[in-house]
Amino acid sequence: MALTPTRSAAEALDSQDPLAHKRDEFFIEEGTIYLDGNSLGPAPKAVFDSIDRTMREEWAKGLIRSHNTAGWFMLTDTLGDRLAQLLGAGEGEIVVCDTTSLNIYKTLHAALSMKPGRRKIVAEGTSFPTNLYMAEGVRSTLDGATLALEGRDGDRIEDMIDADTAVVMLNHVDYRSGVIRDVKALTKLAHERGALVMVDMCHSAGVIPVDLHDLNVDFAVGCTYKYLNGGPGSPAYAYAAKRHHGKFTQPLSGWHGHAAPFKFEQSYRQGEGARALLCGTQHTLSMRALQSGLAVFDDVEITDLYSKGRALSDLFVQLVESFADDFGIGFYSPKDGTLRNGQVSLTHAEGGYAIVQALIARGVIGDFRQPNVMRFGFTPLYLRFADVWDAANHLYEVMKTEEWKEDRFNVVNTVT
Amino acid sequence: MALTPTRSAAEALDSQDPLAHKRDEFFIEEGTIYLDGNSLGPAPKAVFDSIDRTMREEWAKGLIRSHNTAGWFMLTDTLGDRLAQLLGAGEGEIVVCDTTSLNIYKTLHAALSMKPGRRKIVAEGTSFPTNLYMAEGVRSTLDGATLALEGRDGDRIEDMIDADTAVVMLNHVDYRSGVIRDVKALTKLAHERGALVMVDMCHSAGVIPVDLHDLNVDFAVGCTYKYLNGGPGSPAYAYAAKRHHGKFTQPLSGWHGHAAPFKFEQSYRQGEGARALLCGTQHTLSMRALQSGLAVFDDVEITDLYSKGRALSDLFVQLVESFADDFGIGFYSPKDGTLRNGQVSLTHAEGGYAIVQALIARGVIGDFRQPNVMRFGFTPLYLRFADVWDAANHLYEVMKTEEWKEDRFNVVNTVT
Repeated sequence: MALTPTRSAAEALDSQDPLAHKRDEFFIEEGTIYLDGNSLGPAPKAVFDSIDRTMREEWAKGLIRSHNTAGWFMLTDTLGDRLAQLLGAGEGEIVVCDTTSLNIYKTLHAALSMKPGRRKIVAEGTSFPTNLYMAEGVRSTLDGATLALEGRDGDRIEDMIDADTAVVMLNHVDYRSGVIRDVKALTKLAHERGALVMVDMCHSAGVIPVDLHDLNVDFAVGCTYKYLNGGPGSPAYAYAAKRHHGKFTQPLSGWHGHAAPFKFEQSYRQGEGARALLCGTQHTLSMRALQSGLAVFDDVEITDLYSKGRALSDLFVQLVESFADDFGIGFYSPKDGTLRNGQVSLTHAEGGYAIVQALIARGVIGDFRQPNVMRFGFTPLYLRFADVWDAANHLYEVMKTEEWKEDRFNVVNTVT
Repeated sequence: MALTPTRSAAEALDSQDPLAHKRDEFFIEEGTIYLDGNSLGPAPKAVFDSIDRTMREEWAKGLIRSHNTAGWFMLTDTLGDRLAQLLGAGEGEIVVCDTTSLNIYKTLHAALSMKPGRRKIVAEGTSFPTNLYMAEGVRSTLDGATLALEGRDGDRIEDMIDADTAVVMLNHVDYRSGVIRDVKALTKLAHERGALVMVDMCHSAGVIPVDLHDLNVDFAVGCTYKYLNGGPGSPAYAYAAKRHHGKFTQPLSGWHGHAAPFKFEQSYRQGEGARALLCGTQHTLSMRALQSGLAVFDDVEITDLYSKGRALSDLFVQLVESFADDFGIGFYSPKDGTLRNGQVSLTHAEGGYAIVQALIARGVIGDFRQPNVMRFGFTPLYLRFADVWDAANHLYEVMKTEEWKEDRFNVVNTVT
């Protein structure tokens, strides 16, 4: 069986792709089809020289002076302002710092501090686990606080937001399925009921259009190592809407969030705007790597990226549909491309993990998420339509030959 | 006036220095005398290739697989265990992660969780400010918690530890003066009174002998970008004594601290040992840079480093003493070398900041700390006795010629 549309048809789409040249800005090894940019983005080529310069010039030669002369100390703000342009936020509303987990803790606390009479956090039960763990951490430090999960303590968030709800924690895009949630409508509802909204944008920033002002959320967080290609463990970010500046507190009150960090005062005085979400000294090499990741977006429109991402993933859906039923492959993500970001997740009752491993051995890198989800991210900056065709064809071959049943693909690693 | 001992005498000490060869492992620019290794250590030469390999091989080629194949995911533990060897701790007692500020928050909470009937945190009022700010943050999240500062709420910590004291936060070495505190005796006292001890080792680790088991502290934190030469913003560490493993909780309960991070469970279950102090995804490039910093210690004994550091700083004291009174220079650090780490801090009523700037212009890099403290770190891994002599001589000339009064040295930067 030959898959339709044909590989030639996919190649034809590549030849007309106005974003095709962006692939050259990344290091992608020959023979690798990288469908895991939704977990860790590949390396922008510019990062190698940038980090080398940071080490040899800024650190080795500039030494401690580089906090000023190379702008290290303010990277939290300069990177935050750059990110704000991508995410429809304003200057001073985003800081780049720490990890997503920590920024969840800070922003949930910030929201709760603004709603002293309310004690409930409402979240999606399908959230990435650390979001729920951090919400538990917040709850543990606030007398009488509660955490209610959609799907566990209620069916729909719409029905769970009540007069005791301080903050609703949403995911702009679900990490397993790629489904886009209607954050704008939920935020409107939450506000009508007197609650605030914090949204996690790990799986939306850099791949679908995001306009934080239009969504009207109160706080937001996200990581930068996925679609923003900031590198392994690159720093996260936190957003606080300008209307709330100066009106919240959060307990991770480290010196970088102080109004005057170098006055070395004995008591904490909160810094301005989103700077009140800063805590300790940031990881400079990782911050600089992110700078290269963000620079890739300088000459592209997110709307164009989104269109291409949809077209890539729609092609994958179309190709896989032609053989899915024959091999027990199910669609975890909706087939309708308007409902998801550029991710397509599939299921397989017995073989999810092993199928992903067999594909990796063929150079097609996706990932597996418990209990049975195979995730494939279609990131428009560096993927070609021909790659999508090849990936679908490899999947077809892995299933048809039952290659995935080989023992070597059924050894579970520590980290999957 | 020529300083005594002479430069030739200093050179003679260099020629007999068994650690002299270590300097070659660092990048130190010709003409720079770096006395700020107590703020940011210089670059170990090995770091350039190490980070280049991390970027080009592990990230660019290994991609997401490197969490396993390159050991990224477990760097928190492998680096922690390496550090444990330097600090007299055991395997599984130290994790490398996040920032000092955050680790203070976690360990203070951990200590308080073990003393539910007690609500007081006792700390030194002279602590680096972020320590106090983070203690305020902890206090703000715990009903009835209080924070008492030595020098503000009591004269001596010895007299402040009472039946309500849950945890005493100490500094092994004072960041302004370099004075070593008797942590062992204070810990004994605190334990006798039923309190726990958390110690900050930012200014002791890597420069004076540290034996956490002998000190018998309960928790500890520290940064790695000073004497451990991990690079700008390199990750911090947290120690939890084995006897407390499994007996504390802390609210920054992110997925890396979970007992089974990749099972993606909906509720938090704390990981083993010090891993319960982990939170989110770590900053890989910064973690790898620290690895090069720690490797420098592979073939040296801390006791030898300490002896040389003392000799270097004693020489500086001796040289400065010969002209200090003539120019209004005071000793903020004790002159007695047995009382301090390798740091000598001086004071000057009007000129502290400007004198430091004038020295920097001459290639002698120290730093300034409010209100009038000039800090000079004498780090034994790469400093020569001749450097010490030159530094003292530059200081003498800056004072004698009143060079520090020039306008250009009196412009205060944002970050000092």
